[in-house]
Amino acid sequence: MHENKYAIVSDARDPRFLTLRSLQTWQGRTRTGLYLIEGIRHVARAAEQHDLIDSVFLDASVLSNPFGQKLARRLRQRGVPGVRLSPLLYRNLTLAVEPQGIGAVVRQQWIPLARVREVRKSFWLAVESIESPGNLGTIIRTAEASGVTGILLLDSDCDPHDPAAVRASMGSLFSQKLTRCTAHEFGDWARSSGVTIVGSSPTGLLNYKALRYRWPAALVIGSERHGLSEHILEISDFTVRIPMRGTCDSINAAVATGVLLFEMTSQRRGE
Amino acid sequence: MHENKYAIVSDARDPRFLTLRSLQTWQGRTRTGLYLIEGIRHVARAAEQHDLIDSVFLDASVLSNPFGQKLARRLRQRGVPGVRLSPLLYRNLTLAVEPQGIGAVVRQQWIPLARVREVRKSFWLAVESIESPGNLGTIIRTAEASGVTGILLLDSDCDPHDPAAVRASMGSLFSQKLTRCTAHEFGDWARSSGVTIVGSSPTGLLNYKALRYRWPAALVIGSERHGLSEHILEISDFTVRIPMRGTCDSINAAVATGVLLFEMTSQRRGE
Repeated sequence: MHENKYAIVSDARDPRFLTLRSLQTWQGRTRTGLYLIEGIRHVARAAEQHDLIDSVFLDASVLSNPFGQKLARRLRQRGVPGVRLSPLLYRNLTLAVEPQGIGAVVRQQWIPLARVREVRKSFWLAVESIESPGNLGTIIRTAEASGVTGILLLDSDCDPHDPAAVRASMGSLFSQKLTRCTAHEFGDWARSSGVTIVGSSPTGLLNYKALRYRWPAALVIGSERHGLSEHILEISDFTVRIPMRGTCDSINAAVATGVLLFEMTSQRRGE
Repeated sequence: MHENKYAIVSDARDPRFLTLRSLQTWQGRTRTGLYLIEGIRHVARAAEQHDLIDSVFLDASVLSNPFGQKLARRLRQRGVPGVRLSPLLYRNLTLAVEPQGIGAVVRQQWIPLARVREVRKSFWLAVESIESPGNLGTIIRTAEASGVTGILLLDSDCDPHDPAAVRASMGSLFSQKLTRCTAHEFGDWARSSGVTIVGSSPTGLLNYKALRYRWPAALVIGSERHGLSEHILEISDFTVRIPMRGTCDSINAAVATGVLLFEMTSQRRGE
């Protein structure tokens, strides 16, 4: 029935579209605490979490997948607000090569550092700085798969809700606990909580395989170009390196993080 | 002196430019056995290898870096042919957001399967299929860093010389030995050479950490979406999986390959 359908928006100056479009910028996301996702799989995963979706946006002309149509119906029945966009406006809101016709505005989930508590064998990933949002998203996905307790972002420029990061994270953002703090706050928190800081660096003193990790622990990774800051290297209890062969002096930051996290998780479970 | 400089090409219909542009396509690369690279770091690494660079192309208007200028001079003095392109034509030949003004045409290096020989503890990566050229390039870089003996490509669609793969490989292509063969040829080669085949799959029977790898060995990875073919699963001596935690059912293909290769290389060196 018509009255049950979402309103149609096809004017690029419509404030509902302008609000959606503002979430493509860092400023818009920061001001509202919201971000955009697109695609059936992403929206379905976000819908599994309680109260995560703020609103939905649809392009009925491409939403042909029956599962996607059912998902849209279910969200409307649940009372989630939404709009139907013209194909042109919808296209504007996604990086996807083949948009799937269903997207959502999702609430960011941040946990203040004061509420991050260690339990037995807790295990965090701290990201000092990652330049590429795609790498950051892949790192969040990898951290989730390795079973980290949470992710700490030490650099305020590092935006996990950037569209490229959201895409690469493949839905891991919805279940992951994120905390933002400064490197100094992180150091104080780790010291007072008895958390071992393990810095990852090409010049790390120990082969990452040789270290018997102690828990609770936090692995810290630095920027693709510049590595960890002097400050993090100083407050690290250990610095580890991945030995390189051949003519390579480095590997991709997300690959390196995966190699380290899966070694740590394997030691943690006593494999 | 003017006579020592490369000729200027600024017409998009100039056959020298058309030849360069044809190398952006799979057909052009396959017909010639050549491919394109761009950027000071890439060209410098290619120049370290004997007889790898076929020709160079420059955009003097952006080649302001002294090291890059010296590199261009050295290549010209070595007798490497080249052209100077107009900024517009040069831009056409690279994916780089900020082109560096020096690029090269490089010879592909393939080794026939019959010449791939096992030595004590040899260790190969076999790629059955990877859809994203960027992932393929990152995988080649990771394989090089982990110290593989060589890389076998089992799928003729998988092009390591695609511009996105070349960029992500960060120069590892220049020193890596690549072999192309069918999955059947690979199986025959492994059997007759006594090479253990280890298939990587989310449904693998063994935790990748639990297996004591035997050498010589080949790790086989499959496509991001569909994993390994039935044929590869059948001829594998072992299938391994990376255990996933959280809500993830998979990790990025390049990250997974890194986790597996670095475990194998660590066992191989008895760490």
